[in-house]
Amino acid sequence: MSTVPVKYHFASDNTSGVCPEAWQAMAEANAGYQPSYGADALTQQACETFRQFFETDCEVFFVFNGTAANSLSLATLCQSYNSVICSDVSHVETDECGAPEFFSNGSKLLLAKSSLGKLDPADVERLITHRTDLHYPRPRALSLSQSTELGTTYRPDEITALCQIAKKHGLHVHMDGARFFNALAALGTTPAEITWKAGVDVLCCGGTKLGMAVTEAVVFFNRDLARDFEYRCKQAGQLCSKMRFISAQWLQMLGNETWRKHATHGNTLASKLADGLRSLPDVDILYPVDANAVFASLPDSIKVGLKERGWMFYSFIGGGSRLMCSWATTEADVEAFLADAAAYS
Amino acid sequence: MSTVPVKYHFASDNTSGVCPEAWQAMAEANAGYQPSYGADALTQQACETFRQFFETDCEVFFVFNGTAANSLSLATLCQSYNSVICSDVSHVETDECGAPEFFSNGSKLLLAKSSLGKLDPADVERLITHRTDLHYPRPRALSLSQSTELGTTYRPDEITALCQIAKKHGLHVHMDGARFFNALAALGTTPAEITWKAGVDVLCCGGTKLGMAVTEAVVFFNRDLARDFEYRCKQAGQLCSKMRFISAQWLQMLGNETWRKHATHGNTLASKLADGLRSLPDVDILYPVDANAVFASLPDSIKVGLKERGWMFYSFIGGGSRLMCSWATTEADVEAFLADAAAYS
Amino acid sequence: MSTVPVKYHFASDNTSGVCPEAWQAMAEANAGYQPSYGADALTQQACETFRQFFETDCEVFFVFNGTAANSLSLATLCQSYNSVICSDVSHVETDECGAPEFFSNGSKLLLAKSSLGKLDPADVERLITHRTDLHYPRPRALSLSQSTELGTTYRPDEITALCQIAKKHGLHVHMDGARFFNALAALGTTPAEITWKAGVDVLCCGGTKLGMAVTEAVVFFNRDLARDFEYRCKQAGQLCSKMRFISAQWLQMLGNETWRKHATHGNTLASKLADGLRSLPDVDILYPVDANAVFASLPDSIKVGLKERGWMFYSFIGGGSRLMCSWATTEADVEAFLADAAAYS
Amino acid sequence: MSTVPVKYHFASDNTSGVCPEAWQAMAEANAGYQPSYGADALTQQACETFRQFFETDCEVFFVFNGTAANSLSLATLCQSYNSVICSDVSHVETDECGAPEFFSNGSKLLLAKSSLGKLDPADVERLITHRTDLHYPRPRALSLSQSTELGTTYRPDEITALCQIAKKHGLHVHMDGARFFNALAALGTTPAEITWKAGVDVLCCGGTKLGMAVTEAVVFFNRDLARDFEYRCKQAGQLCSKMRFISAQWLQMLGNETWRKHATHGNTLASKLADGLRSLPDVDILYPVDANAVFASLPDSIKVGLKERGWMFYSFIGGGSRLMCSWATTEADVEAFLADAAAYS
Repeated sequence: MSTVPVKYHFASDNTSGVCPEAWQAMAEANAGYQPSYGADALTQQACETFRQFFETDCEVFFVFNGTAANSLSLATLCQSYNSVICSDVSHVETDECGAPEFFSNGSKLLLAKSSLGKLDPADVERLITHRTDLHYPRPRALSLSQSTELGTTYRPDEITALCQIAKKHGLHVHMDGARFFNALAALGTTPAEITWKAGVDVLCCGGTKLGMAVTEAVVFFNRDLARDFEYRCKQAGQLCSKMRFISAQWLQMLGNETWRKHATHGNTLASKLADGLRSLPDVDILYPVDANAVFASLPDSIKVGLKERGWMFYSFIGGGSRLMCSWATTEADVEAFLADAAAYS
Repeated sequence: MSTVPVKYHFASDNTSGVCPEAWQAMAEANAGYQPSYGADALTQQACETFRQFFETDCEVFFVFNGTAANSLSLATLCQSYNSVICSDVSHVETDECGAPEFFSNGSKLLLAKSSLGKLDPADVERLITHRTDLHYPRPRALSLSQSTELGTTYRPDEITALCQIAKKHGLHVHMDGARFFNALAALGTTPAEITWKAGVDVLCCGGTKLGMAVTEAVVFFNRDLARDFEYRCKQAGQLCSKMRFISAQWLQMLGNETWRKHATHGNTLASKLADGLRSLPDVDILYPVDANAVFASLPDSIKVGLKERGWMFYSFIGGGSRLMCSWATTEADVEAFLADAAAYS
Repeated sequence: MSTVPVKYHFASDNTSGVCPEAWQAMAEANAGYQPSYGADALTQQACETFRQFFETDCEVFFVFNGTAANSLSLATLCQSYNSVICSDVSHVETDECGAPEFFSNGSKLLLAKSSLGKLDPADVERLITHRTDLHYPRPRALSLSQSTELGTTYRPDEITALCQIAKKHGLHVHMDGARFFNALAALGTTPAEITWKAGVDVLCCGGTKLGMAVTEAVVFFNRDLARDFEYRCKQAGQLCSKMRFISAQWLQMLGNETWRKHATHGNTLASKLADGLRSLPDVDILYPVDANAVFASLPDSIKVGLKERGWMFYSFIGGGSRLMCSWATTEADVEAFLADAAAYS
Repeated sequence: MSTVPVKYHFASDNTSGVCPEAWQAMAEANAGYQPSYGADALTQQACETFRQFFETDCEVFFVFNGTAANSLSLATLCQSYNSVICSDVSHVETDECGAPEFFSNGSKLLLAKSSLGKLDPADVERLITHRTDLHYPRPRALSLSQSTELGTTYRPDEITALCQIAKKHGLHVHMDGARFFNALAALGTTPAEITWKAGVDVLCCGGTKLGMAVTEAVVFFNRDLARDFEYRCKQAGQLCSKMRFISAQWLQMLGNETWRKHATHGNTLASKLADGLRSLPDVDILYPVDANAVFASLPDSIKVGLKERGWMFYSFIGGGSRLMCSWATTEADVEAFLADAAAYS
């Protein structure tokens, strides 16, 4: 009996490698001696590029992955006796193995209801206000994901409304932007409009899923909150000695609209994939395909068939099968997947 | 007025980039889709290569840097109310910004006297036994560095003696091997002889300073201690999603004696640098140059002169000027440095 | 306008003071010099009394309050990357301000459904097994409360069934016994039958609500888990220097059936209170009054009226008004409350 | 063979019980029902009494012991990546089993040299300034003990000088006042003069060693630092439910000069004890007996003889035998001890 090789194409947007532009930037950075730990010129330039990108004098730090970016920034917003309001489907709750609680030394996550992956403002306010006694951890941060874990995006006014509730009650606002660029490309706004102009204090800006190697950026729009953050990174094992390889990638991705090319590509193929699936009988697309994720309700026959042909995908959140596109996904990948799905339809 | 560019050649062994072999391995790994988080075939092969390298069925995990490798492994050996015996010049004490205390949630480092950077066995035993009341954190781990922070190396029998003291009192043994390969190349032993055969329970095996990008390996020879370590890595933000880039490097470095080539090279040039400096008047070489570090007592005239010509180096430990060599250091680098030193001698 | 003084009689079972027997024991202990930190003879005797009480060679430690008892024992059962399964109405989740997460450095609480305050075994098993990937904290402890936060009690067979599920999956079992003695008095079993014989590994045994001053006992039936627990207590600020005052109370309460007298008294008056309320129109008693808590659904007229007459009580859990009885509650207290309730009925 | 009972009279100032005044205050507080967790009237009065005592609008919190008081207040002054400058003989370093590191999630203690138990200002400044790179935890708090662990006291101008160094570099000042009242009685200043007027931000004010049961007060003169401290106490298991018993004691001790009576008594008997010992041949008193501690260098014959007669005392710090007096020490105790010492002289 022959075994079909497993196909990880749509399993996640981190099963692909590093995009050519990021790779080239790293290759060019790999020359000569540079000061370590971010004291090099490339790192300074990369941070400056972030400031231009967001049109504001933000503070920027590079860490190794999203778990660290989210957890370190939440630990900065909260003391151990504080709590974080987040969505019941948020990554910080469901897929970081207690990292936010670990880095903050005990801050509790309070789960607000969500609709299409987006926080319900009324439930957020209820959670902030329903307990004010000291036997319950005091809410101090609101965390939202852009794009959301269900592949949807918050419009600027939706972010503003949530931030206003947070600010009214003295909470800071954190944005998990593991797929920030997908959201940005989809919304067609400026980066500023969906972050600091809407009230976001700190953004975890995803590099890995955009096609980079081993980096996320933590961007503090509220500069007061960035105080000593470099010490926090160092102590938590998130200060890269050979920082130039990280910085060079960011410089390339942000500085030359490379981010837009790849994010738009992932979004477009996700949309195409959704369209193709939608046309099959008994298949439902569960959420608006705003970004690079497709959540589909597939009949068992299709699920089993796709598996037999090697396609791997998850169904641990959102109540359906999740299919992710990335910079690397090709039209041929999508067509092959759709053909196999149709064959079992 | 013209400014001389700063020369970071000898400032650290992490001011150089990625060596050609590791780079090539990463480039080859950057093809197609792979499962994330270490479930890929390259990672399995890399771990297997470690087992062959150490001639034992060890457990292997890859993290991003030495701070994390050391701290996570010490946190595994200790509970918060335990303490770690380490040298007064150990990196975990002097240069990790409290990371061991952070990851372990409070384990205290107890500082033993050292000679030439190496732990004094009698003082280690004194520290383990001088307090047995519960008002003092109970020693549970012994940490030694190979090569040491002063560029010296422990011989197998020295390691064995320290490990025996540790075991006698119920302590586990941790080895900070940020420059493990430099030590190994210098000693000419097998990897096993200076680790598990001597009693080491867990080794943090340095990739970055050997010429790799963003990785250290945590190697548990005592497999019981490795239980659930993958969860610990994940929670602490040290699980790489695109693990293939890390694994590919290790496979290349360990599997083809590439480690030996680069480690020997760094050691040889350090030795040459020391010889050259030693020949200058009023210069002392402070410690045996066993590996890739030279600690020199330089007259002020030379220090000022080297600085004027752009050479950057540190003097925060060991009471002298520290000069590091790496895979990238060239004979020409050494000669240029020595010529400039001689000019101010 | 005259103000009615607030009546805290039924607000909690910690609004009463110290019972005469415990007081007398402390007074007798207050003579002469004693070694500190539990090295005194009274402490040894108190621990021995626990062993007799539970008919097993358990390890016993005294801490200051229930938050510490629960959190320190859960921190012993779990590493930071582990999780605790507990009821959605459990005190550790709702009223300890993130203490379990703090003491454990990040262990997450996973909330199982409950019925009448008691864990639903099927949901417990679902929670243990539904995620086995390392992106989710691995369940390592099951926590149940006896009596529950809704005033109900687990029968021995119910505890056994839950413990069996836990053990099957490698979890330890923790019992929050803030009102353990109320449960014990109500059930009429031996202490052993509802603890270690049913599979409980560690019990937090409540003194404060039983009528004592500033103490809870942590009882490890699984002695392996007790290793170094005294260090954990010390480091966490839970080692009392003048331990004799705590030990003397326990010796008295356990050694002379004083616990039974007071626990039974609280239970009996709760039952009487429930009966009285039940006889009023539009009043429902929401849960079986197994122990010393009454949860009543009161019409607004009664709630407002009782408040006007000074009666204070909470309604933050269980969906009704919670009324607690203690060793200090008198028949007259109950009658006065019922009369006032009837007046507004 | 008959065994001499062990005499703990001078082993510590916590081997004595509760003084009559504190006991009486607790007894009176043990009546009726009171709101829990510090919402009672006695607690409000006790806090107000502290404000009068210190002549300033300070914030006051009661916790169970000194380990918690010191650690929670230091955790408030520091983030995990910060460090605390303290004396090499400080209690937080030598006898709290890593509690400061635990509560702060990793803040490191940096040890400054001391003379007669008092911090050396020059070494304090050296420690604050010698490392400013982010590989070393940034100093954020200075901790001094009053009276010191060697029984000496800081004069107001000495405190002022240390506080000025701290403030100059942005550090907050913590005072470990486990024996604050002994120092205060000895110095004859006002409470304000040796605390906030000299620059102290937060004082841990010792009740236990003064003759009270299970309490220390944390007094924030810098009110900004007190923000949310009640949550920190609650989460850390340091919020007492039956707070009235703690508050009643403080009200009595501070409000009626009871503190002065007992502190002076302990100091006077320590002085008498020192005088008696000093008159014996080959006995040296090692430090000025400013407060209630005597450190004596005793010949072996005396040490052995005293031990044979049952006298217990420690010699783990200060290089001599430590003898402590308290509210309970009697002239007869001192005379008996001296007579036994003389007998072996």
